Amino acid sequence: MQQDRGQLGRSVRGRRCVVTGGFGFIGSNMVHRLAGLGATVRVIDALIPSHGGDRRNLEGLDVELCVARIGDDAVADVVADADVIFNLAGQVSHTASMIDPVFDLEINALDHARFLETVRRMSPGARIVHASTRQVYGRVATLPADELTAASPVDVNGVAKLAGEQLHMVYAHAHGIAATSLRLSNVYGPRQRLTSGELGFLPVFIRRALLGETIEIFGDGSQERDCLHVDDVVDALLAATADAAIGRVYNVGNRHAHSLSEIATLLVKAVGSDVPIEYVGWPGDHHRIDIGSFKTDSSRIASELGWISSIDIAVGIKQTVAFYEENPWYLSST
Amino acid sequence: MQQDRGQLGRSVRGRRCVVTGGFGFIGSNMVHRLAGLGATVRVIDALIPSHGGDRRNLEGLDVELCVARIGDDAVADVVADADVIFNLAGQVSHTASMIDPVFDLEINALDHARFLETVRRMSPGARIVHASTRQVYGRVATLPADELTAASPVDVNGVAKLAGEQLHMVYAHAHGIAATSLRLSNVYGPRQRLTSGELGFLPVFIRRALLGETIEIFGDGSQERDCLHVDDVVDALLAATADAAIGRVYNVGNRHAHSLSEIATLLVKAVGSDVPIEYVGWPGDHHRIDIGSFKTDSSRIASELGWISSIDIAVGIKQTVAFYEENPWYLSST
Repeated sequence: MQQDRGQLGRSVRGRRCVVTGGFGFIGSNMVHRLAGLGATVRVIDALIPSHGGDRRNLEGLDVELCVARIGDDAVADVVADADVIFNLAGQVSHTASMIDPVFDLEINALDHARFLETVRRMSPGARIVHASTRQVYGRVATLPADELTAASPVDVNGVAKLAGEQLHMVYAHAHGIAATSLRLSNVYGPRQRLTSGELGFLPVFIRRALLGETIEIFGDGSQERDCLHVDDVVDALLAATADAAIGRVYNVGNRHAHSLSEIATLLVKAVGSDVPIEYVGWPGDHHRIDIGSFKTDSSRIASELGWISSIDIAVGIKQTVAFYEENPWYLSST
Repeated sequence: MQQDRGQLGRSVRGRRCVVTGGFGFIGSNMVHRLAGLGATVRVIDALIPSHGGDRRNLEGLDVELCVARIGDDAVADVVADADVIFNLAGQVSHTASMIDPVFDLEINALDHARFLETVRRMSPGARIVHASTRQVYGRVATLPADELTAASPVDVNGVAKLAGEQLHMVYAHAHGIAATSLRLSNVYGPRQRLTSGELGFLPVFIRRALLGETIEIFGDGSQERDCLHVDDVVDALLAATADAAIGRVYNVGNRHAHSLSEIATLLVKAVGSDVPIEYVGWPGDHHRIDIGSFKTDSSRIASELGWISSIDIAVGIKQTVAFYEENPWYLSST
């Protein structure tokens, strides 16, 4: 993971970059990378409890901070002279979106409409890269799913994220905003809040492996996912600043898919102790929003922007486990 | 247009039906039909100025009225014991959606999330049919567009309407609500507000033809649309109450597409006077959201629900012009 990534997209050295959701999982990894590449970084984050943002993710970094929702007027000054905006703010919990649909739509769709209006007013020439999700696809008939597959989300989070993504495309095509959106697969790696049960299976599996607690797999464990290490995602976000990406949507997934059983087994191996893996039935109504296996076709971003996933899941999981062993506070709920 | 339509979907005779947006164009035609079929009808309409709803559309009908947005708590009692809900409330102006994106998302997406929560709480067994739009497709690579075509809306209205539609599908699949959504093509016919320039080309053409004013066509007039008479739409909404339609999305368009030039010519012929037709350039930025020709593939609803368009555009336009000649108040702005 020490490759030369300097050639991805336009250079950010000396550029004014804004990262929304910058205290969060993907956002903070982005900020670390940008700082390392010599960019000037400003962070916008609402620090909404349970959304994954934590000030400690950016400790020791010299970045400007603005604690606000991206839909707030307060962010206007922050984006005013931005060169590149990585728009990663969002609510990512399926469960929370089904409990409070309106709030999810507010955060993932309306706030992005407000933010795009702010960008249009304050920095219409800025490059903007938005983080969408493969969840917009929902249950699809044919895998792997490419970008021409009709989106059919199975939860409110998928509906709201798709609306947020499409707003970026409308602003690109109708208003000339230089926007791109990436549909990210399941992402794992350092700086993810591991204490929530609501952020998908990966943080749950990682936490349980690290704590030596039984890893429970819903179903028979054969469901596949093309999980991405967050460093690969940061590469993709940088690659997406290329001019060729303006007004485009890209899938971003791992070239290789793995079953939930395989992933759990790799985690158990990485922690080096005998953590049991148990196969259990779907709790309550969860099977209704299960999509079975999913695999992303990421050939568009490969051919147009030259990005392909580079981190093997066994290597990535080992590095991730090592990170959390060195930073155990991610495992505690305070 | 006096065919026997009694066999479409489940019978509504004696059923408690709710029509949201019932004072509006499609809504009021739905209410007239339901009343004629012997249903009990309740109307929910916010009567938002400029949205097309008008109390006069339902004059003389014996229906219960609730003036409220569908997201308001006030509608809970109205839907409490509903058998069938035709959820037709919405904001349909592309232009307005680009001027106030947040309001369009509020009306077409968030209010529907709130409404679906109300239905889930108050009448979880009700049948619900939602009006979506072919605008969700935007600019597509291959025509005609079927339901497996990836939606790529070109304006905020398309984004918001798609979110509203997908929320109905999420509630169907995750919560067991008996919802269906129809992606309607351009609709024309009686009881449409003709005084706005924001509701697509059809009401503008119809108004100008009736007033003897020059019909202006943006571009060369070769763009095709598969326009639907509102009576065909009402048929489709009734057909969509069939059990086979639960949890499904259907395209609803005319079997035959016609160019804007042909449609304008038919209108001129129908009014029987020498209304000039003029071809002009796209005003301002409008070309950015023009989608060229569009044709819907409606074979899914034909094969699954037995609906096909039945009203030839020449016949439909003649009937429509006759309606407005008998009801000239639709042409005045008060």
